[in-house]
Amino acid sequence: MSELRKDIVTREWVIIAPGRAERGQRSSALPTESDDFLCPFCPGREALEPELWAWRKPGSPANSPQWQVRAIPNKFPALEPIGNASRHDYHIYDCMAGVGAHEIVVETPHHNRNLVTEKPEQVAYVLEAYQARYQELRKDPRIEHVSIFKNHGWAAGATIRHEHSQIVATPIIPQLVWNNKQGQKQYHEYRDSCVYCEIINIELTLDERVIVKNDDFVGLSPFAAHYPFELWIVPRRHTASFANITTGERLALAQILHLLLTRLAEELDDPPYNYTLVSAPCKQDQDPLFHWHMEIIPRLSVIAGFELESNIFINTVTPEEARRRLQVPVESPAQHLRTTLPDDG
Amino acid sequence: MSELRKDIVTREWVIIAPGRAERGQRSSALPTESDDFLCPFCPGREALEPELWAWRKPGSPANSPQWQVRAIPNKFPALEPIGNASRHDYHIYDCMAGVGAHEIVVETPHHNRNLVTEKPEQVAYVLEAYQARYQELRKDPRIEHVSIFKNHGWAAGATIRHEHSQIVATPIIPQLVWNNKQGQKQYHEYRDSCVYCEIINIELTLDERVIVKNDDFVGLSPFAAHYPFELWIVPRRHTASFANITTGERLALAQILHLLLTRLAEELDDPPYNYTLVSAPCKQDQDPLFHWHMEIIPRLSVIAGFELESNIFINTVTPEEARRRLQVPVESPAQHLRTTLPDDG
Repeated sequence: MSELRKDIVTREWVIIAPGRAERGQRSSALPTESDDFLCPFCPGREALEPELWAWRKPGSPANSPQWQVRAIPNKFPALEPIGNASRHDYHIYDCMAGVGAHEIVVETPHHNRNLVTEKPEQVAYVLEAYQARYQELRKDPRIEHVSIFKNHGWAAGATIRHEHSQIVATPIIPQLVWNNKQGQKQYHEYRDSCVYCEIINIELTLDERVIVKNDDFVGLSPFAAHYPFELWIVPRRHTASFANITTGERLALAQILHLLLTRLAEELDDPPYNYTLVSAPCKQDQDPLFHWHMEIIPRLSVIAGFELESNIFINTVTPEEARRRLQVPVESPAQHLRTTLPDDG
Repeated sequence: MSELRKDIVTREWVIIAPGRAERGQRSSALPTESDDFLCPFCPGREALEPELWAWRKPGSPANSPQWQVRAIPNKFPALEPIGNASRHDYHIYDCMAGVGAHEIVVETPHHNRNLVTEKPEQVAYVLEAYQARYQELRKDPRIEHVSIFKNHGWAAGATIRHEHSQIVATPIIPQLVWNNKQGQKQYHEYRDSCVYCEIINIELTLDERVIVKNDDFVGLSPFAAHYPFELWIVPRRHTASFANITTGERLALAQILHLLLTRLAEELDDPPYNYTLVSAPCKQDQDPLFHWHMEIIPRLSVIAGFELESNIFINTVTPEEARRRLQVPVESPAQHLRTTLPDDG
């Protein structure tokens, strides 16, 4: 069982999870080709981890092959849904049992395909898995936040080659989520409007950093991008959580995400990247002041001592240059995407 | 010239520095052996960058060989001491010219030695360079903070093999420094005492995470360590900035830093690491509520999507286990170090 400990100065929570050390050092133990033959995520090995949710062929039994996307427990969980999420002190320090959940979303049955080489429909199934698991996890009263993210490539933290995302449900509201909420609230108090609604308006008007848009989302390189080629996908509809999106919006998001990941892969030779969904805490997912968005972060440089000390990032590619490099040609119909997919599964 | 841009939601400043892209992508372009023959930091190439400060043989002229430590401008500066540090707005956003400074401290004249294979005296010369450059940089009224840090190894962000540290002077107070200051202030308001003084007291009493101590400093693995084998060096004397330390304290710090880096290199096979000095902003370096400290962060795992979204770190090595692994045997005189070096240069 892991433990949460609070940094007494910065108030950041840390998960101390010695059990996860068994899965090996990520930076040194790169998987070999032979590991692929033992891939725990490939069809035929469903018995290893019983599924929590799956998009599968109608009528096929749970934990059989014939699935498109599959959510399973993480074999080395950072947090587990066991026990009470109560805080206790240890001398001057604060701690908490490692209560929560840690799940995997296997994004494709194909060992060598990924969100770019799959069709946009496949991305829509993955997003559906996120939503389904979020709705289930938020029912647990111990859970305060559900983090949904993807690590693609070893330099972005992936340890298994078969493409997957992760979901971590925490018994506390993460500090960065709280900071984002506070930032949005303060902007609203100051300007009486939503900061992300303002960003969409100004960016569409200026047309210096927008890369792609459709009826429901805008894909852009943010004005103060922390990382080279960092991208945001901002929903046009003001709502607090990814979990609130409609089926139509899910398809629209899948199209825009597929296109942006494809452009990154083309321009930057399949770079390592993370993406994260920045949503309100799950008990506040109707918060009228919060506007959720998605961040895609290519991992082309190393987070070094300056960033660790200051949290000031040095970005060597201007967001305007990133837009120029990633932009889809004007004549392409892809630049303004339709929000319906040819085949909704 | 670079530009500072402020994230409109989180209020984090980012340095947009396209000029630094010329130095190549850190993660892909590992230096080759042949690059070493062109090392810009080796003796004999002093003319490439005129020195800002040097610990050199008495009587030897500036920019000649016969130095022990040398501070020079960074060839690809993120910030430069040119122009006004005034803010301006761009539509809804805030920006600022990239005013500041970016310097290199070459830590040894020997291309293949480092802070571990050099003697503790050499570490003391490096610390003296930091102090000398800090005192010079803080005279510039445009400078609000001086960041001092080291990247060792490619996975920690080093791009040149010859061992060196960096100094970045910024025209704004970095958010993390501000947060640390606020955390210390709030603890003081709540408990009427300094949080780092309390940490030293409780850790020395509990003796579960202390690795080494001398008359002036305590080296420990912090209770809520974010990273496996993360270490802190906390000064016993309550003062707001590294820059305030005495000659005796500098020697004591050099000894303890040398010992901790040596133990990490022995136990973890010369791991990549960063170290940072967490001091008060330079115009507040007499702040009675701030207690400076040093952090050493081995880079054994990748900062991945979960950390980027939440700022919650997952640490797979308990601080108590890190202490057990790194501890010096009880009978060793090194566990309680003297604060004088045999030869003060």
